Amino acid sequence: MKFNIIPKSEFDKVHKSNLSSVQKSELWALMCRYNSFVSIKKAGSGHIGSSFSAMDIVVYLYLNELNIHEKGLKSSDRDIYFSSKGHDVPGLYSVLFSFGIISEYDLMHLRRLGGLDGHPEIKTKGIEANTGSLGMGISKGRGFAIAKKHLGKDGHVFVLTGDGEFQEGQIYESLQSTAHQKIDKLTVIIDRNKFQTDRLVNNVNSIEDLKEKIESFGWAVRVCNGHDFEDISDSINWSKSIEGKPSLIIADTIKGKGISFIEETNIGENDEQMYKWHSGAPSDSHFTQGINELSNKISEFVSKNNLSEVEYKFVYESENIATLSKKEYITDAYGDELCKLAELRDDFIVIDADLSADCKLRNFERQYPSRFIENGIAEQDMVSMAGGIARMGLIPIVNSFASFLSSRANEQIYNNACEHTKIIYALHFSGMIPAGPGKSHQSVRDISLLGAIPNITIIQPANQIETRLALQFAINDSKENVALRMNIGPCPIDIEFPENYQFKIGTGTILKEGSDAVLFAYGPVMLAEALGAAEILHSFGFELCVINMPFLNRIDIGWLNRTCSKFELFYILEDHSVFGGLGDNLTNALINNWKISVKKIVKIGLDNYPECGQPFEVLNHHKLDAKSIASRIIGGDYNIFSDRSIAYSDEAPQ
Amino acid sequence: MKFNIIPKSEFDKVHKSNLSSVQKSELWALMCRYNSFVSIKKAGSGHIGSSFSAMDIVVYLYLNELNIHEKGLKSSDRDIYFSSKGHDVPGLYSVLFSFGIISEYDLMHLRRLGGLDGHPEIKTKGIEANTGSLGMGISKGRGFAIAKKHLGKDGHVFVLTGDGEFQEGQIYESLQSTAHQKIDKLTVIIDRNKFQTDRLVNNVNSIEDLKEKIESFGWAVRVCNGHDFEDISDSINWSKSIEGKPSLIIADTIKGKGISFIEETNIGENDEQMYKWHSGAPSDSHFTQGINELSNKISEFVSKNNLSEVEYKFVYESENIATLSKKEYITDAYGDELCKLAELRDDFIVIDADLSADCKLRNFERQYPSRFIENGIAEQDMVSMAGGIARMGLIPIVNSFASFLSSRANEQIYNNACEHTKIIYALHFSGMIPAGPGKSHQSVRDISLLGAIPNITIIQPANQIETRLALQFAINDSKENVALRMNIGPCPIDIEFPENYQFKIGTGTILKEGSDAVLFAYGPVMLAEALGAAEILHSFGFELCVINMPFLNRIDIGWLNRTCSKFELFYILEDHSVFGGLGDNLTNALINNWKISVKKIVKIGLDNYPECGQPFEVLNHHKLDAKSIASRIIGGDYNIFSDRSIAYSDEAPQ
Repeated sequence: MKFNIIPKSEFDKVHKSNLSSVQKSELWALMCRYNSFVSIKKAGSGHIGSSFSAMDIVVYLYLNELNIHEKGLKSSDRDIYFSSKGHDVPGLYSVLFSFGIISEYDLMHLRRLGGLDGHPEIKTKGIEANTGSLGMGISKGRGFAIAKKHLGKDGHVFVLTGDGEFQEGQIYESLQSTAHQKIDKLTVIIDRNKFQTDRLVNNVNSIEDLKEKIESFGWAVRVCNGHDFEDISDSINWSKSIEGKPSLIIADTIKGKGISFIEETNIGENDEQMYKWHSGAPSDSHFTQGINELSNKISEFVSKNNLSEVEYKFVYESENIATLSKKEYITDAYGDELCKLAELRDDFIVIDADLSADCKLRNFERQYPSRFIENGIAEQDMVSMAGGIARMGLIPIVNSFASFLSSRANEQIYNNACEHTKIIYALHFSGMIPAGPGKSHQSVRDISLLGAIPNITIIQPANQIETRLALQFAINDSKENVALRMNIGPCPIDIEFPENYQFKIGTGTILKEGSDAVLFAYGPVMLAEALGAAEILHSFGFELCVINMPFLNRIDIGWLNRTCSKFELFYILEDHSVFGGLGDNLTNALINNWKISVKKIVKIGLDNYPECGQPFEVLNHHKLDAKSIASRIIGGDYNIFSDRSIAYSDEAPQ
Repeated sequence: MKFNIIPKSEFDKVHKSNLSSVQKSELWALMCRYNSFVSIKKAGSGHIGSSFSAMDIVVYLYLNELNIHEKGLKSSDRDIYFSSKGHDVPGLYSVLFSFGIISEYDLMHLRRLGGLDGHPEIKTKGIEANTGSLGMGISKGRGFAIAKKHLGKDGHVFVLTGDGEFQEGQIYESLQSTAHQKIDKLTVIIDRNKFQTDRLVNNVNSIEDLKEKIESFGWAVRVCNGHDFEDISDSINWSKSIEGKPSLIIADTIKGKGISFIEETNIGENDEQMYKWHSGAPSDSHFTQGINELSNKISEFVSKNNLSEVEYKFVYESENIATLSKKEYITDAYGDELCKLAELRDDFIVIDADLSADCKLRNFERQYPSRFIENGIAEQDMVSMAGGIARMGLIPIVNSFASFLSSRANEQIYNNACEHTKIIYALHFSGMIPAGPGKSHQSVRDISLLGAIPNITIIQPANQIETRLALQFAINDSKENVALRMNIGPCPIDIEFPENYQFKIGTGTILKEGSDAVLFAYGPVMLAEALGAAEILHSFGFELCVINMPFLNRIDIGWLNRTCSKFELFYILEDHSVFGGLGDNLTNALINNWKISVKKIVKIGLDNYPECGQPFEVLNHHKLDAKSIASRIIGGDYNIFSDRSIAYSDEAPQ
């Protein structure tokens, strides 16, 4: 597939044209939507809906309001704009590109290593704050404003938020303190596009009456049409005129605004209005349809206003990034097994934080509506609620992405655990892959964040079979809390178990025999790399034993002795920080175990922030791919090998 | 000092009397205040102000409302009451005692090992939820209500909250979701005593207009006088009549209600109204004054109502728990050094979450008001605000208790860190001691919670000298974030440094030479035990080298080699979980260091939840005291030794 973009020179032409300010904004936004749509298609993922609902506001600010063009991006007097929700960043990138702040190369390398991150990252020119974890923006924006005041610097701070974000408690903390501290150089704009992921905010966890609510926190509030540039302009000017208190604009917008079928909603079960373009790239035919609609609108606009036709530039051909077909998903088995177990026992309750589809809970939700609680984006509340449910003897199964659940709700998890009830925490999107969404979403700290809680067993299954067994264990057998760490993408290979396979607490499974060294790994992504490394090493006559170790913080010493007494060289591979993962837990088990003579223990994991990009490039960057692992184990250069056959699909959630 | 309590039999007399329901409640509450005051005095710490402001509400519920007396505490149909703030639990204990739910022994062993925890713990009969970390109560209460509905069980859920708690974001998450989920078997009562710690809530971070605010979240709200039993009764009945939405009672109360001088406030600097009885035990003379006032009120009440005199029971003599005199506080040096450094550079900002006095920030606050932000109990907001401030080139110094800051704001700390700015996190009340407040406050996970963030140096100083140097390093020298882990209590001994002492990243200091084994420890509490162990071992001819290691996650391998190459036996002592502390970091440094021949590495730390109690009993319970350590190192029974001379004061914050 070929991609055309609108080059910066075309934006310069618009800038110099005789169009009115409003007309310029309108055309500019259309052109930015075009480039944004292309970049998401090229990347294979990205958030279209939110990029488009916020686009007119963002274009207005950069074209008419922000002083960055005069002051420069390094000036302490500059105006600050950033989006708290962050996933609308493909839209922002196209705007930054239109002003020459980021390059064409960057724009065309969304979600690629060395390109643009899937959520905002300040290493990218023009990005003011790392966001992607919801609810932090107003607090951070106030920080900028306070610092400017302390430094005696000019500049207004604009923070865009989502409406679903108004389910996060930190938003209300920040509403309260920002009003109390009388911060008035801060304007918050809510992109009120009504949908969070795929459902109406007010169906999931209503935030109405939003205006009344925010006013009750001492803010000046105004509602505007977020696609009407005059209204946006008036509202921004109104906001800047408010003194002694912060102000907020509720911008009424349409998710996906600009392409007709991406604006559309459909009616799902229970007559519920659903939105399906929150994230993910359009298919080839959808892309063609959408890009034609945008270019037609642009053509109409320029011809109506007697401007010359916009000239497109051919940029790239699709690289045909390898995608998987028919590979299994861990979470499919998880969702299915939940339903099966629900038939057998009615004492567990499934709870979700607005990620029901990603967490494969939709079937459960349909079949057991009275045992499913959609709690919205309120992780702390969700976890403490689970605590109360567990105190009455039921088993709550709490779902969210691992990076959010293990950190945002950490104190609540600890609090529940110290009551010695049983709760299952389903940590979806664990590990570094998919790497497209960036470091706010990649979860490489979760084991360390739960590891010091005495009564949580942490398990990561290798395939669908083990996923079912792990869930059965958690619900039926475990006496304590269980954290189920699950990959969210398709498994790169099928991990096949030997005939004597057993799922038994503290034990693992030999997936490949070997006598020269042993490598422990877990989860389908890292096991694929581990087995790949073993294959490479085999061709060098080095026989690496590969063990699948699903129990990340419970080790059966008897099993370890029986399995490992013949080894002296131990490697532990994980897409988690080298701190606080299986590596540390196994190290402790090994060094205090005098039946095993250890010569070397090497933890192969992350010692820095995870990079954003395609799985293969990110794994390689962090030296966690098969070749790097093989190289680390016996040294040498494996670049002589052709690329191995494992291929990934970067199906990027949220 | 001698203590009298009012025995349960006296409450039974009141119960059988002909007093009206309101009169019974009044007398009961007076008698419970009496016992509560005694238990706090005996314990040496506890929260009087909040126990007394909530007392009338709690007495009303247990005497007139809760069905637990008929249904029993194990019935799934029972009504549930718990306090979300939790620190008012001495008041609740006296009520539980009055109904015979807890024993006289328990009541007289507040904050003692095997007695009653400083914050609610469900191991105590009658306690429904572990609380103490603020803001979780409404969420948890909803969980109880949802589970009851699922199970088809009866019973109403009552949750008491503080007013300062309404600065925590989770409160608003729970207001929103509880209304959305139409939970109506839940009544929330705010103990609106107007003060948080020592300042007016509305001066710290105003929560007004509270009624309007809560109503905007879809709740039914009613204001009542929290010391008027008829009004309380009417309000509870009103609340239970509300259908289809949750209801909340704002109970207007007086902090310390019941003893005149404990109700009093005084005028502090800037004409600010201050409250001084939030926590801590009264002096002997204050105790006598207060207890006389209560017994006089009781006498007057019974004589006015023609009842027989209440008979007191002599219970215990004061045990004279050893307290320290003139020992230094780490945080005194911290507070003082902050002021000194502020004279030299004006690019740092000090931020607090309602613990200014405990964190010894009051002098800084006075001297540099424009560089101090009191952000209230809103840790997540505080940390993200610091992130914004740091992005403008200033250095924020963020203060709170370690257990709250490292967990509640964990995702925000990670988010800031990945922007590669520099922020200093002052983790007060680190470690297990003082052990009176209980496991919500004792911080034994903080190193593990920050350890997987690549760019945070974690330091714990051993004494005042090292505290100043650590703060200087953090502000002047460090290129990355610093977490300063500080003890909050008085240092049990003065840790003296050798002449060649240096504060250098990754290195430690030999405090006692020895050749038989080496023990690493940090912070004044554990170093005192380490040195005590070395002394015991010396008398056995075993020479233990003791090293103070303030850098908990940065180890200078060259220094380690030079210092430790002669050792084969390594011990690491910490009042932190054995998971993710210095122990794991040193283990990794040692096992990958082939210049050192390691025979044994033993981590001596916590492998379970920290117990509540006096320091000496809790250290002993967890085998972290000098004798247990010595015993672990060379075996044998050290009970033949007389108690060692280290004495602790359990000065218990929050």
